Amino acid sequence: RMTEAPLSGVVPMFVVMKFDPEGNVTTFEKKKTELCQELSLQARDLRFQHSTSLTARNNCIIIRMESLKAIVTPQCLLVLDFRGMGLERWLVLELPPQLTSQTHSLPFEFRALEAILQYKVNTLQAKLNEVEPIILDILESLVDPKILSADRSKLHILLQNSKSLSELETDIKVFKDSLLKILDEDEIIEELCLTKWTDPRVFEESSLGIDHAEEMELLLENCYMQAEELGNNARELKDLIDDSESVIFINLDSHRNVMMRLSLQLTMGTFSLSLFGLIGVAFGMNLESSFEEDTRVFWLVTGFMFLGSGLIWRRLLSFLGRHLEPSVPPPIPPVWKRNLKASDAKAGIR
Amino acid sequence: RMTEAPLSGVVPMFVVMKFDPEGNVTTFEKKKTELCQELSLQARDLRFQHSTSLTARNNCIIIRMESLKAIVTPQCLLVLDFRGMGLERWLVLELPPQLTSQTHSLPFEFRALEAILQYKVNTLQAKLNEVEPIILDILESLVDPKILSADRSKLHILLQNSKSLSELETDIKVFKDSLLKILDEDEIIEELCLTKWTDPRVFEESSLGIDHAEEMELLLENCYMQAEELGNNARELKDLIDDSESVIFINLDSHRNVMMRLSLQLTMGTFSLSLFGLIGVAFGMNLESSFEEDTRVFWLVTGFMFLGSGLIWRRLLSFLGRHLEPSVPPPIPPVWKRNLKASDAKAGIR
Amino acid sequence: RMTEAPLSGVVPMFVVMKFDPEGNVTTFEKKKTELCQELSLQARDLRFQHSTSLTARNNCIIIRMESLKAIVTPQCLLVLDFRGMGLERWLVLELPPQLTSQTHSLPFEFRALEAILQYKVNTLQAKLNEVEPIILDILESLVDPKILSADRSKLHILLQNSKSLSELETDIKVFKDSLLKILDEDEIIEELCLTKWTDPRVFEESSLGIDHAEEMELLLENCYMQAEELGNNARELKDLIDDSESVIFINLDSHRNVMMRLSLQLTMGTFSLSLFGLIGVAFGMNLESSFEEDTRVFWLVTGFMFLGSGLIWRRLLSFLGRHLEPSVPPPIPPVWKRNLKASDAKAGIR
Amino acid sequence: RMTEAPLSGVVPMFVVMKFDPEGNVTTFEKKKTELCQELSLQARDLRFQHSTSLTARNNCIIIRMESLKAIVTPQCLLVLDFRGMGLERWLVLELPPQLTSQTHSLPFEFRALEAILQYKVNTLQAKLNEVEPIILDILESLVDPKILSADRSKLHILLQNSKSLSELETDIKVFKDSLLKILDEDEIIEELCLTKWTDPRVFEESSLGIDHAEEMELLLENCYMQAEELGNNARELKDLIDDSESVIFINLDSHRNVMMRLSLQLTMGTFSLSLFGLIGVAFGMNLESSFEEDTRVFWLVTGFMFLGSGLIWRRLLSFLGRHLEPSVPPPIPPVWKRNLKASDAKAGIR
Amino acid sequence: RMTEAPLSGVVPMFVVMKFDPEGNVTTFEKKKTELCQELSLQARDLRFQHSTSLTARNNCIIIRMESLKAIVTPQCLLVLDFRGMGLERWLVLELPPQLTSQTHSLPFEFRALEAILQYKVNTLQAKLNEVEPIILDILESLVDPKILSADRSKLHILLQNSKSLSELETDIKVFKDSLLKILDEDEIIEELCLTKWTDPRVFEESSLGIDHAEEMELLLENCYMQAEELGNNARELKDLIDDSESVIFINLDSHRNVMMRLSLQLTMGTFSLSLFGLIGVAFGMNLESSFEEDTRVFWLVTGFMFLGSGLIWRRLLSFLGRHLEPSVPPPIPPVWKRNLKASDAKAGIR
Repeated sequence: RMTEAPLSGVVPMFVVMKFDPEGNVTTFEKKKTELCQELSLQARDLRFQHSTSLTARNNCIIIRMESLKAIVTPQCLLVLDFRGMGLERWLVLELPPQLTSQTHSLPFEFRALEAILQYKVNTLQAKLNEVEPIILDILESLVDPKILSADRSKLHILLQNSKSLSELETDIKVFKDSLLKILDEDEIIEELCLTKWTDPRVFEESSLGIDHAEEMELLLENCYMQAEELGNNARELKDLIDDSESVIFINLDSHRNVMMRLSLQLTMGTFSLSLFGLIGVAFGMNLESSFEEDTRVFWLVTGFMFLGSGLIWRRLLSFLGRHLEPSVPPPIPPVWKRNLKASDAKAGIR
Repeated sequence: RMTEAPLSGVVPMFVVMKFDPEGNVTTFEKKKTELCQELSLQARDLRFQHSTSLTARNNCIIIRMESLKAIVTPQCLLVLDFRGMGLERWLVLELPPQLTSQTHSLPFEFRALEAILQYKVNTLQAKLNEVEPIILDILESLVDPKILSADRSKLHILLQNSKSLSELETDIKVFKDSLLKILDEDEIIEELCLTKWTDPRVFEESSLGIDHAEEMELLLENCYMQAEELGNNARELKDLIDDSESVIFINLDSHRNVMMRLSLQLTMGTFSLSLFGLIGVAFGMNLESSFEEDTRVFWLVTGFMFLGSGLIWRRLLSFLGRHLEPSVPPPIPPVWKRNLKASDAKAGIR
Repeated sequence: RMTEAPLSGVVPMFVVMKFDPEGNVTTFEKKKTELCQELSLQARDLRFQHSTSLTARNNCIIIRMESLKAIVTPQCLLVLDFRGMGLERWLVLELPPQLTSQTHSLPFEFRALEAILQYKVNTLQAKLNEVEPIILDILESLVDPKILSADRSKLHILLQNSKSLSELETDIKVFKDSLLKILDEDEIIEELCLTKWTDPRVFEESSLGIDHAEEMELLLENCYMQAEELGNNARELKDLIDDSESVIFINLDSHRNVMMRLSLQLTMGTFSLSLFGLIGVAFGMNLESSFEEDTRVFWLVTGFMFLGSGLIWRRLLSFLGRHLEPSVPPPIPPVWKRNLKASDAKAGIR
Repeated sequence: RMTEAPLSGVVPMFVVMKFDPEGNVTTFEKKKTELCQELSLQARDLRFQHSTSLTARNNCIIIRMESLKAIVTPQCLLVLDFRGMGLERWLVLELPPQLTSQTHSLPFEFRALEAILQYKVNTLQAKLNEVEPIILDILESLVDPKILSADRSKLHILLQNSKSLSELETDIKVFKDSLLKILDEDEIIEELCLTKWTDPRVFEESSLGIDHAEEMELLLENCYMQAEELGNNARELKDLIDDSESVIFINLDSHRNVMMRLSLQLTMGTFSLSLFGLIGVAFGMNLESSFEEDTRVFWLVTGFMFLGSGLIWRRLLSFLGRHLEPSVPPPIPPVWKRNLKASDAKAGIR
Repeated sequence: RMTEAPLSGVVPMFVVMKFDPEGNVTTFEKKKTELCQELSLQARDLRFQHSTSLTARNNCIIIRMESLKAIVTPQCLLVLDFRGMGLERWLVLELPPQLTSQTHSLPFEFRALEAILQYKVNTLQAKLNEVEPIILDILESLVDPKILSADRSKLHILLQNSKSLSELETDIKVFKDSLLKILDEDEIIEELCLTKWTDPRVFEESSLGIDHAEEMELLLENCYMQAEELGNNARELKDLIDDSESVIFINLDSHRNVMMRLSLQLTMGTFSLSLFGLIGVAFGMNLESSFEEDTRVFWLVTGFMFLGSGLIWRRLLSFLGRHLEPSVPPPIPPVWKRNLKASDAKAGIR
């Protein structure tokens, strides 16, 4: 929207970095209109509306991968508006050798396209690599059976990272969809093989025993499968978060039950003491009980109080023990075991 | 249903706002039958049965997008029944400049269709923009690890907004499906290019190097991808709600466990005090214990009561500490770490 | 199964209600075999095996929609076995006007088919209308933040209604699938246009500018989209139940936490009182403490007991307050806020 | 694997039960190789590798449905290895009448195939019928709002049955997939019509006005839809289990909250009693308070203790009441109600 | 990446194990370039980029299944880089007999491909066999209704195994997808039949009545269905884990409710004792109550205290009993029962 609707008088400019097959790199500014004329493109071809797109137009491949906007021609690769996007390191150090490498004899556009798609895959991989260890670490510490209560600042970080993971999953899906759209239509794959249509001499030279369209399909499919693998990893990580949360809940619940039993046992003790303490309170009243003069009564009543409390408590505890262990039909386990073998047999038939 | 089945004698009328390519806007009322005759449409073409539809009929594009009903012809755009629908602002301020803009040389129906579809996308976006910050704010405050209990009025608002989000997701899906239905059939796309069939002169003029059907496909695809992006955002938001709810539950459970441990520790203290208080109660009885005359006994027994309580409590607390920390096999963590590296290696192979 | 495998000697009969295009309605009984002969159908065509089916056979459309079994011919509509199915109201009051209405000039089978499909859609809609307000009412009262415990009889009703909702979803899916099967095969749509094949005169008359097959497709598609909308509503309702359940759980948990804190605060108080009460118990012992004669000691000790209890309790309460509020890194919120803006920007690019 | 890789010297034998169209049944043993030669099949055709398969080979239909292995030829049906599989009842009582019935004039292979597929459907139905009432019964008793704690032996049985249900769902899916694979390829359907290719005379006789391939498709589709219906039922049952579990949790949580409130109320009482009891304890000390002689003081203090406890308790209880009922904005309900109407209107438009 | 980008000067070598149809096995080292030349392959064909791939190139089948890299030619099977991969046992003991077996007359590449795919299936099966019994055992012990708190070290092991299960599911999915990609394109299946294109003599000899492509499809389909079955098993196991977790939660919650009721009952007892103990405390005060001299008063008050406590406690207990059993409408159960029958009837119609 911004590139397209400038205030009148402001001419839209692109800052362009140009790479040619010989490894020369030049940087210059150019008006959008001039660039269009030069490449025989139309203004709307350079709108870069969608965050991820890959199209062939008039013997150019126009690519946008989030912050990276590029045009591939048979003779050069133009990277547009590259400043302040965190692309510098890649543009200066990694891209040039990839563009000039001679490991395969395919024309320039293949090397350029591969470098850009690989950059995208690496970006996604880097995001996953950033999120994954943090999540694993936090889960590791949260499912620790020793903890009584989850560390809540860790939960906060987990939440943020699982949000990032969701966004990453969307990114991977969008990237996969854009590749799939091309892989599903042989026509578009053909259009991406620029040299085939522009430079018959180079084409014939390079295509000894090689079908350009097939090579292009392989290149795209390769990236697709890498993205698929990333997607699988992200999904597994999501599953792990879900499973871990269940385990955390069971852990917390178990702790609570253990504490509750302890608490209940002590409540039983307190109750016993209150019950028999009442006898002491009774004898402590300023009322005449006619036992006042006999020394043995003191020891008798005191002993009764302590012993009674102890006995009642013991009975309550053993009642609790019985109460929490209902009788269940014991022959249940074998059913599962048998199923297990049946399914083994089933799966191993051939 | 209402437009279609009038009580006999009541003639169905449309309030129509007409936009022509020169930017003239006129408003008038017209009988449904007259309108049909004028545009050579049949009555059933103007039933607007479904809340979202986009069809081409006899060189007109008939559109309904919830409250917006419109007919696009090669010469004008008619908006029907526009009153009281909240469309006024858009009709008066935003639509006219879009219809008269000359940024691309495509015929009128393209500008009209783009404006309407963009209006729909903006409406969806606006709904999301309304719901998203509320949900994020509420989640932000609900997952706050400091809170002991969730603010229940916030939960109510969250519930309402996640209901709105569900409805928005349905709306986006319906919109995407209606676009997809057209994108899947090249025939319908061709039909949407009205000028191609009605005005060969304008068509030839405008189509220098431009394929109208391809332009139409681009226009629709563009809207489709915007809707897709909105759908992705809505889905991510739903995921975030789910994840946050898990975190809220863990938070609440953790709080409870912490409080339970404190409560248990105090129950232990109370138990100890009751136990040794029983001694005091015993000596408080109006029974002769033969120690009454000795002053040291008072201090002895008092000291024993307090010290005993303290010691028992300490033992109970340390018992609790041990009880809640079961011994676990320590070599478990490395498994995950190793997996992590393996998956790194796997994903980074090429 | 019952219609098909009669005990020998029992001739299968149909009770038939016949509607002709002029609005005449007759009711009669007829043997299955005679009916087959009359319509040149085979016995197996009238088995009505599946609860939802719509097929064209030898210039008849044979329909079953749960309890409604019907045969449409170009000249009449036969409804079979209509008694005791709750169809009477519809058959007597609603169906005849729909069959004789002249709003469109299409032949009889279109009106008959539309009436039947619309009946099915209305039935589904009625089921949803029955279930939806009950569920909304119950959820409304269950998510009420004021309630401490869910009303369990309401839960029971909710469970029954969500079971009904599941069944309704299945019904809608089956109906949609049966329509989709037809919409996917142009051949079957052609077969459904009975008049086109049987009555060329009427066909030509009625088909001025109208393609029968296209009309039939529109009719079916219209029903399909209505069913789709119902399905969307049912799904949203299911989502709402799920979301509400989460809110109910958070509500209940929050209540519990609040009560637990109160309980803990009181336990602290009781503990403090027990602790300092022990002093009183000590002085209550019938043992000589040598302070007995001094009046000030009484006030001193009593005051110490109450003040001490109060002070200890206060310290415990403030300890609890600190304990439940762990220190968290404050710069967390901005992350979300920033993300929000980023996604806004992303979605609003064009 | 076992049938295929015999130890050398052991000749694989089949125990065969043969049904011919006239209703004759013979049982005999035959070497696998002989059987192959007789039917002009290859050894690998009779491997029966997969638990569910249905293939046509050289004018035979080879079927395996779990324990049932069968070969259908135009002249007979061979059931292999039928002993000890629980098939006896069906083979002796149900199969023969189905094979000789003359309800339709289609050739033998149709009757045989229909009988076998119907047997499979009935088996699946029987499994569902076995599991469904048990699950419903258990759920019925578990969601009973009166129960305080779930009966854990019932939970165990529920778990086993929901495991069986999962397995049943897989079985249904596998059966549906194997039918769908055939329904998707007209060629295979043609191959299944054995008589068409082997016995032109019978074919022509039987095919008066009947297209064999179409009949075969109907037969398979019929079974497919029955399996679909079973699958729907199983899925609904799974949903019901999930919904019931939510209700069980809400029930248990509600019970707990109610108990907690009671417990809290009693804790408040105990606290009040402890607080004012401290006064009594104070006066019980063997210390001089100078009030000893005045009788009214006894009643005053005693009354103060009881009244004070009561008053404090009442204040605490009313505090609890207020504490648990936070003030919420009341205009929330209308939103839902309004939505309800809106969605009604939406769905009922036409 | 490593095989492809060696440091200059380091020639990439393969350690190759060669199997020929006669059963001869030789092991040697060979440069990658030489191997390519020998087999007329290109360097990029031997990159083995993806963890699972199966492609035909220039009359060779190039396979990678995780650690197993192999090339199948019509004359031999080459296994590359086999050391340290845990393949030795299979390579030495199992593979040779499978390659030389003469059970079917198909050419060598079929036997080689079948052996490799079967190895992959067996590997997946082995992984499932390793994980399944552990998970079943742990679940068995965790859902044990007698346990009060889940054994947390078992939960940890469960978590690890369900992580392994997720990874296994991904592996199965990737394997299935790679087979499906081939099964969907008849061209690739044709290419996999190497002998058909290279050795017409052998081809004609072996193909008496056998279509090679069809055999290849059968072979791949067979593996696909085995993988499908494994996938089904893994999914069922995942479902079982989920269901078991629900049961564990219900178990823990039930235990807690039972303990809570016990605790509440004791709290009631303690409250009653405190209430009536207050009377004793009152009479224990050193204040004159004028009852001091009467012996009967002692017994009266003591009896009142104990009896009163007991009575109040009983009332509280019966109040609790009533409180936890709300009155519910009894006619609810029949609804389900009726539904059950209806669905029976529905499913059993034909």
